[in-house]
Amino acid sequence: MFNTLIRITYDGTCYSGFQFQENALTIQEVLERALGVIYKQPLRINGAGRTDAGVHARGQAATFRAPFRVEAEKLPHALNCLLPSDIVVTGAVEVSENFHARFQAGRKIYSYTLDRAPFPQVTKRLYSLHHPGDLNLEIMRDAAKQFTGKHDFKAFRAAGSPVSDTTRTLYSVKLKEVAEEQLVIIYFEGSGFLYRMARILTGSLLRAGTGTLSPEQIKATLEGQYPGGAGPTAPAHGLCLEKVIYSLLPGF
Amino acid sequence: MFNTLIRITYDGTCYSGFQFQENALTIQEVLERALGVIYKQPLRINGAGRTDAGVHARGQAATFRAPFRVEAEKLPHALNCLLPSDIVVTGAVEVSENFHARFQAGRKIYSYTLDRAPFPQVTKRLYSLHHPGDLNLEIMRDAAKQFTGKHDFKAFRAAGSPVSDTTRTLYSVKLKEVAEEQLVIIYFEGSGFLYRMARILTGSLLRAGTGTLSPEQIKATLEGQYPGGAGPTAPAHGLCLEKVIYSLLPGF
Repeated sequence: MFNTLIRITYDGTCYSGFQFQENALTIQEVLERALGVIYKQPLRINGAGRTDAGVHARGQAATFRAPFRVEAEKLPHALNCLLPSDIVVTGAVEVSENFHARFQAGRKIYSYTLDRAPFPQVTKRLYSLHHPGDLNLEIMRDAAKQFTGKHDFKAFRAAGSPVSDTTRTLYSVKLKEVAEEQLVIIYFEGSGFLYRMARILTGSLLRAGTGTLSPEQIKATLEGQYPGGAGPTAPAHGLCLEKVIYSLLPGF
Repeated sequence: MFNTLIRITYDGTCYSGFQFQENALTIQEVLERALGVIYKQPLRINGAGRTDAGVHARGQAATFRAPFRVEAEKLPHALNCLLPSDIVVTGAVEVSENFHARFQAGRKIYSYTLDRAPFPQVTKRLYSLHHPGDLNLEIMRDAAKQFTGKHDFKAFRAAGSPVSDTTRTLYSVKLKEVAEEQLVIIYFEGSGFLYRMARILTGSLLRAGTGTLSPEQIKATLEGQYPGGAGPTAPAHGLCLEKVIYSLLPGF
């Protein structure tokens, strides 16, 4: 069997998330259908992470095992001919038999985009949250510092996540202003993210920026001393999985 | 009657252009429907220009006459509540009785966006032409200089345009590289544009950039000495009407 890691970008607007569902169209289903055409048999892919309905990706990753070899540099073009225009495979590399897109993932980078224009920018409306009101970016940066490091993020996940260990490390949480485009982009780089964690962290940062939550309250929530510092969950369409980083494949 | 000028942005993907058509949905029809709700009677708008099917706008303008006054600063919000999310009104100003969005328009700025990434960037696919191949931007800039100034652009328009005077002035044609986003954006600023002219000029510039048309051939085509320097017509979805400039309303 030949094991291949692919890099996938998608506009999540029209999909019910990444992972296969019986009753809804997902990125995984569309990708597996295209792989099935190329390899002439049903194949299963393993994604590096499950993005929610409406969430986008510029650097999702997935592995699949195939019965014969297709040259890795030709695979993206072959797949893109079969995929709709809102899913684009941008890279492929053959990996060892036991490599798994999720288990080998070293860290992930998510972005959350805020549209700061007075009225929504129509060409950005599907990929950003319109937030024209006052935002104190300095306080948001202070709040972001509280999240940085190794913490138990159990308060900052949605109900229904089955994991028992809720400790994760955020290597950085950075705010970038793109003045010319009237955007503020929050980048989260971490060892892993709990269910809806990036959107809940964004919700807390927005409350900090609007003055309804202090960095100290966020710190207390992380320490289990204050119950009210998490969320609300920011809408899906502002979130994008920017990159999955593999230490074994630094160039990928 | 109260005459009002509004500034309109739209994602043209789902519309058959700006101007009303009997058998297809247009931006004008959707705007007039929303105005009809606010003013409780059918109203007609006059656009500053007719954008084609699939073309976008960040600064379209239109005037309409209404039987009573709605405060200009409240009108965008009132309209946006009634409009779909791909059409957003971003400004309104009361103008004199005889002001007409098209006849008073001083100059217009169009942009044409090229996506230079190796694979299409999914979140930009609706607003750019994917053109990953080699492009010589210096030759394109040379070609763009040929277009600048007052010329008879009769070779650079699509058949079916009814105008008799085909002389227009292009104040500038500029190429902007946005390296971080892997984009090249061409800006056309002119006194007016013939039918499909901006897209045909883009087609000529792309041929210059790929080495199949020289700046000298473009010059000869403008002078009526060479028949082959116009187009092809670049696809609609890369084009955006950035701004309509009114010398009477410098701040608008």
